[in-house]
Amino acid sequence: MNDGQQEDIQALTRGRPVAIVGAGLVGAGWAVVYARAGLQVQVFDANPEITARVLPLIQGQLEGLQRHGLLREAPADVLARIRTVGTLAEAVQGVAYVQESVLERIDVKRPLMLELDALLGPDVVVGSSTSGIPGSAFALGLSISPRVLIVHPVNPPYLVPVVELVPSPETAPATVAFADALMQAVGQTVVHVKKEVEGFVLNRLQAVLLREAWALVQEGVASCEDIDKTVRDGLGWRWSFMGPFETIDLNAPGGVADYAVRLGPLYQRVAASREHEAPWDAALIGEVESQRRLLLSEAELEARRAWRDERLMALAAARHGG
Amino acid sequence: MNDGQQEDIQALTRGRPVAIVGAGLVGAGWAVVYARAGLQVQVFDANPEITARVLPLIQGQLEGLQRHGLLREAPADVLARIRTVGTLAEAVQGVAYVQESVLERIDVKRPLMLELDALLGPDVVVGSSTSGIPGSAFALGLSISPRVLIVHPVNPPYLVPVVELVPSPETAPATVAFADALMQAVGQTVVHVKKEVEGFVLNRLQAVLLREAWALVQEGVASCEDIDKTVRDGLGWRWSFMGPFETIDLNAPGGVADYAVRLGPLYQRVAASREHEAPWDAALIGEVESQRRLLLSEAELEARRAWRDERLMALAAARHGG
Repeated sequence: MNDGQQEDIQALTRGRPVAIVGAGLVGAGWAVVYARAGLQVQVFDANPEITARVLPLIQGQLEGLQRHGLLREAPADVLARIRTVGTLAEAVQGVAYVQESVLERIDVKRPLMLELDALLGPDVVVGSSTSGIPGSAFALGLSISPRVLIVHPVNPPYLVPVVELVPSPETAPATVAFADALMQAVGQTVVHVKKEVEGFVLNRLQAVLLREAWALVQEGVASCEDIDKTVRDGLGWRWSFMGPFETIDLNAPGGVADYAVRLGPLYQRVAASREHEAPWDAALIGEVESQRRLLLSEAELEARRAWRDERLMALAAARHGG
Repeated sequence: MNDGQQEDIQALTRGRPVAIVGAGLVGAGWAVVYARAGLQVQVFDANPEITARVLPLIQGQLEGLQRHGLLREAPADVLARIRTVGTLAEAVQGVAYVQESVLERIDVKRPLMLELDALLGPDVVVGSSTSGIPGSAFALGLSISPRVLIVHPVNPPYLVPVVELVPSPETAPATVAFADALMQAVGQTVVHVKKEVEGFVLNRLQAVLLREAWALVQEGVASCEDIDKTVRDGLGWRWSFMGPFETIDLNAPGGVADYAVRLGPLYQRVAASREHEAPWDAALIGEVESQRRLLLSEAELEARRAWRDERLMALAAARHGG
């Protein structure tokens, strides 16, 4: 967070707070992002049990960040900017922006949009964290529709910077511009998804890689662990600092066009060699699960997630100089 | 390189050298791997111009490794174990193992196999670096066939540890066991590819991700750079220390089986939404190239490759403690 970003935030929000609606893992993560950036955060969840857990959850996340040198203030100072409230109306009172992270269900998101339509002033932007439901499915035909878009994070958003912005056909360009500026001001990396394709970009890339990985297991070509090695000790090295287009642009003498001509036919054959007629069946899921459970028991999952978060924080610290 | 690995190498090779046949970038990289591990290396290329360049090339690579704390000896000491020779016969004289990295052409590899068949003793293993030609296409029906397999590296092998072992139907299990042991003794990470599928594992994963990435550009969903961001600032973070199976095993409460049930249908729909009937056409290649050239001119490619290698070395140093 540099001085330029601080000024940007104040200019963008005119000193107003941000509302977090939906206080599960994703909402809590967003609260950290905004509070760490200096914003006041008002948090609401329809489930009071979730609300009761969110501040201790956030405190733990902040302490982890501090341990890795990723927090410039004391956790208590950041936490002091976050308060929970008992109603949606209180949560959105006087805010510049609403981050919605409720259940991934149209029959939950649509009613919420109707409520926000009634509550919000004419200059409040609403970002939905949804990964699977396009704005067109729940945010059209309302007075707020021009000010609603998808603002889809990677979990946890306070560590992994990519955010996908996905406007609906009714989203105004100024709304996208606002969300872009806000995301950059709070330290995220913005990706513009210009059409409402299922899975947006990141999850589509993950989807196709996983479909191929699972097919290789099904065919007996390689074990789950060996496939994992090709990524964590191979592909993942380059992809940790270069995207796929830059990677291939550097991997042929004449750049990406040269690469595409040389490797294009092979890649087309590989992709065409698969049918994708059905989701992974029970037998294959059982096979993958049994291979994974030999490496990591179900009882160890929780600890391994904590290990993963420590590794992510170390990565973030290395990237941002701690 | 620890003492255990040193012993393993001596036991495996019985003090005999390794032959490098084909001294381009890949062969030179392999020479570094073997010499750094303490082995004597004999290098041959049918093209004397290539041969003339290889030791200076290797010296530069060794100096880079030293700069990043990845070399436990002086470059000169490692280089002293590598010598170039003028004939194939000299290169394979008395060796334990041959690493073949000649042109990716059956009409080059097959004649070479015939020559090796005549030259090699009964206990010499041959590993081919090929990424695109299975052993079945050039290594069958010879007396050496049981001792030939694919030993496919990631470029550069002295930095990125993954090696894919791909036996042909005639490869003996003892050959695979030898190659596995040798690779581990020289510090590589072994992946067993149990069927001769095109692209093996790593390049198949890269292939399908690239096919989706290019389709997203073609559809106008996102720019090359934004797609790259989703990987280098998103997916690539997790994939730099966890493979795709471990990643998803940790991303649902009940582990991978839980994840597969929740996300499987979406991923099947995403993968099924694409046709793969043709390689990328000229118009699309032109579009991707023009986007890339706006970010990086052709004149800057070389320098960017050097930057990439510095970043890879820094990654390797961080992994292996320098």
